[in-house]
Amino acid sequence: MSGEAGPTPEGVDAAIDVAAHMRRAIDLAARGLGTTSPNPVVGSVVLDAHGDIAGEGFHEVAGGPHAEVAALRAAGDRARGGTAIVTLEPCAHTGRTGPCAQALIDAGIARVFYAVSDPTPNASGGAAMLRAAGVEVHSGVLAAEAARGNEAWLTAARLGRPFTTWKYAATLDGRIAAADGTSRWISSAASRADVHRLRARVDAVVAGSGTLLADDPHLAVRGTDGPVRQPLRVVVDTHARIPAGARVLDDAAPTLVAVADDLPAATARALADRIAGRAEILPLPRAAAGGLDLDALNKALYARGVRSVLLEGGPTLAGAYAAAGLVDKVVAYLAPVLLGAGPTALGPAGISTIADALRLTVDDTETDRFGGDIRITARPARPPSDEPVANQPAAQPVKES
Amino acid sequence: MSGEAGPTPEGVDAAIDVAAHMRRAIDLAARGLGTTSPNPVVGSVVLDAHGDIAGEGFHEVAGGPHAEVAALRAAGDRARGGTAIVTLEPCAHTGRTGPCAQALIDAGIARVFYAVSDPTPNASGGAAMLRAAGVEVHSGVLAAEAARGNEAWLTAARLGRPFTTWKYAATLDGRIAAADGTSRWISSAASRADVHRLRARVDAVVAGSGTLLADDPHLAVRGTDGPVRQPLRVVVDTHARIPAGARVLDDAAPTLVAVADDLPAATARALADRIAGRAEILPLPRAAAGGLDLDALNKALYARGVRSVLLEGGPTLAGAYAAAGLVDKVVAYLAPVLLGAGPTALGPAGISTIADALRLTVDDTETDRFGGDIRITARPARPPSDEPVANQPAAQPVKES
Repeated sequence: MSGEAGPTPEGVDAAIDVAAHMRRAIDLAARGLGTTSPNPVVGSVVLDAHGDIAGEGFHEVAGGPHAEVAALRAAGDRARGGTAIVTLEPCAHTGRTGPCAQALIDAGIARVFYAVSDPTPNASGGAAMLRAAGVEVHSGVLAAEAARGNEAWLTAARLGRPFTTWKYAATLDGRIAAADGTSRWISSAASRADVHRLRARVDAVVAGSGTLLADDPHLAVRGTDGPVRQPLRVVVDTHARIPAGARVLDDAAPTLVAVADDLPAATARALADRIAGRAEILPLPRAAAGGLDLDALNKALYARGVRSVLLEGGPTLAGAYAAAGLVDKVVAYLAPVLLGAGPTALGPAGISTIADALRLTVDDTETDRFGGDIRITARPARPPSDEPVANQPAAQPVKES
Repeated sequence: MSGEAGPTPEGVDAAIDVAAHMRRAIDLAARGLGTTSPNPVVGSVVLDAHGDIAGEGFHEVAGGPHAEVAALRAAGDRARGGTAIVTLEPCAHTGRTGPCAQALIDAGIARVFYAVSDPTPNASGGAAMLRAAGVEVHSGVLAAEAARGNEAWLTAARLGRPFTTWKYAATLDGRIAAADGTSRWISSAASRADVHRLRARVDAVVAGSGTLLADDPHLAVRGTDGPVRQPLRVVVDTHARIPAGARVLDDAAPTLVAVADDLPAATARALADRIAGRAEILPLPRAAAGGLDLDALNKALYARGVRSVLLEGGPTLAGAYAAAGLVDKVVAYLAPVLLGAGPTALGPAGISTIADALRLTVDDTETDRFGGDIRITARPARPPSDEPVANQPAAQPVKES
């Protein structure tokens, strides 16, 4: 994606490369992916009065210090008269921590550049608070790039449901397994390792019971560097088919088994016996089209603080998500393999004719090779009226000194 | 792909960038793709005694001058004492034109660099002829790159059948049409234009009768720059189902309709009546697995001078080619579209389990965007014993002065 810093606002020392510092702040923010929910990821760089870097910080975990506070702490007295660069509008509300706008004022920050405005009613107002205190405030620096870095949180904030990434690994001809069901391994070891990185950045991983019965996936994060907050494992298991020995029932991560709320009492009892307290059982209404009501599932997940979901299949569940318009992003690992038979990556999605096809836009910067595989990242090409916040054009920087 | 020029041979003026001139010769050679069969494509650059470019040439059309002769003509007297750079070993035989090795000797060329040895028994021996005349000869310069440029001809020469590229356009989930059969358009206009460029570079375009009945493709070249020799249009039509109004029966290009050689006499008569002389009818034996014997088809095409084939589907025919090990290259146009239902790009290819999957190697340099689509080019990852000539490591340059 492209991100423009826009013209340098008047009065700003030309020696300060605001875009470069913002890019650094966006990189810092990304380190919080997977551990900040229900908060956004935020990164910040604080420069001293000479324009030299005095401190850096990012929001690491919900309840912990916000990015600006972390950067101010690192900067200490050098922040006075300095500049703060932040990926998101500094908050104005007191939650588990005090308002960041006030912390910036208290530290004597003279100027703030932020990328994206805070869309949430109870946190916005930071820019106004700063201006009221005489701080120079500029917005929109690398806004598109920063919004992309926060796409899950921004989309969740806008839609009130988790941002959902559908991930699949398939052959070049779209198969996820051979005709006899064998699938180990279609994708490369490098692709499979990348999936663990994706899992580490989301709040929940979702799979259907068909995949559970066919592949017995573990769905937890393994083998990534650094500390990881394990995502919630969610099994969409309408008919309560999960076996007692399923690997998702181990203690590597919490697990939630979503089942129909109208199961026969004996079936529900048998499920509870099999689960034996190793997972939470969540009864949900059925969807008219069959399976569970995915909006109800999303609502329940959102209420638990889940802002991002990695949907790991299989074809039936992915088709249901696509049919419901709930796929926000697609990450496809295409292996240079041909099979000519076997199950396909995406099952019926309510599309019967080409005019109704779900059209996507590929982001070239996210196309990469993993082993022999090609990873393609794409997002629905929605009409502008339904454009997600993350894809809106950057606001022009505004001089407000 | 990588191509190494290797160390500069002793005695060669260090100022001559042999690799750069060879790269130019390879580019020149490519201009002949589609018009030189049954000959290879060849490009040549002739330098004068000072190492300056004196002439360039390429083999443009079978029966016309060979690349070296064209370059020597352009160079005139400046070739004396000079250097010839050629993508393929100069030929030693007299066909419709005289041997190139003799032409180089007659022109007073002192030194020859070529990339790839001529594997055909009646044309090889050029290097030996040159050496016998006292010409310094070096081989293997950018051999891999030059071999890739000539992969169709080299593979056809080695295997005695046309080099076959399977081209398809599909959605990201592997569909070539929606559930109701609609497919216009899955791929972008830019992808469809690129297909015409592919057609212009091959000797024949092959499609099955299923595709013919579903899409009524024209299969000729339209809209490309410059003069084009139309490829032979081949319809694999086991049961003689081609309708009288099929677009391939127009006069834009020659057409061959391959049918089973055991058709009932009435069926064969009806076919001949419908075709009414607008296409050649080629009866072929059936394959044991159903459909026509593709080896017999390849043999018949080879006998007609066809060295390269673009297989344009559909799934059944592509599956038969894959099952027979006759796919040498895959060009996939993947549209960022999801359908979730509809026919898949590749039909049954005799592969029932993952261990038998047809594994390919993607060439990153040939991955490109066409409109919103991603074009992926891949070739079978054969075991080394069956490695095609085009993938063999470059021979080391040898000093032979």
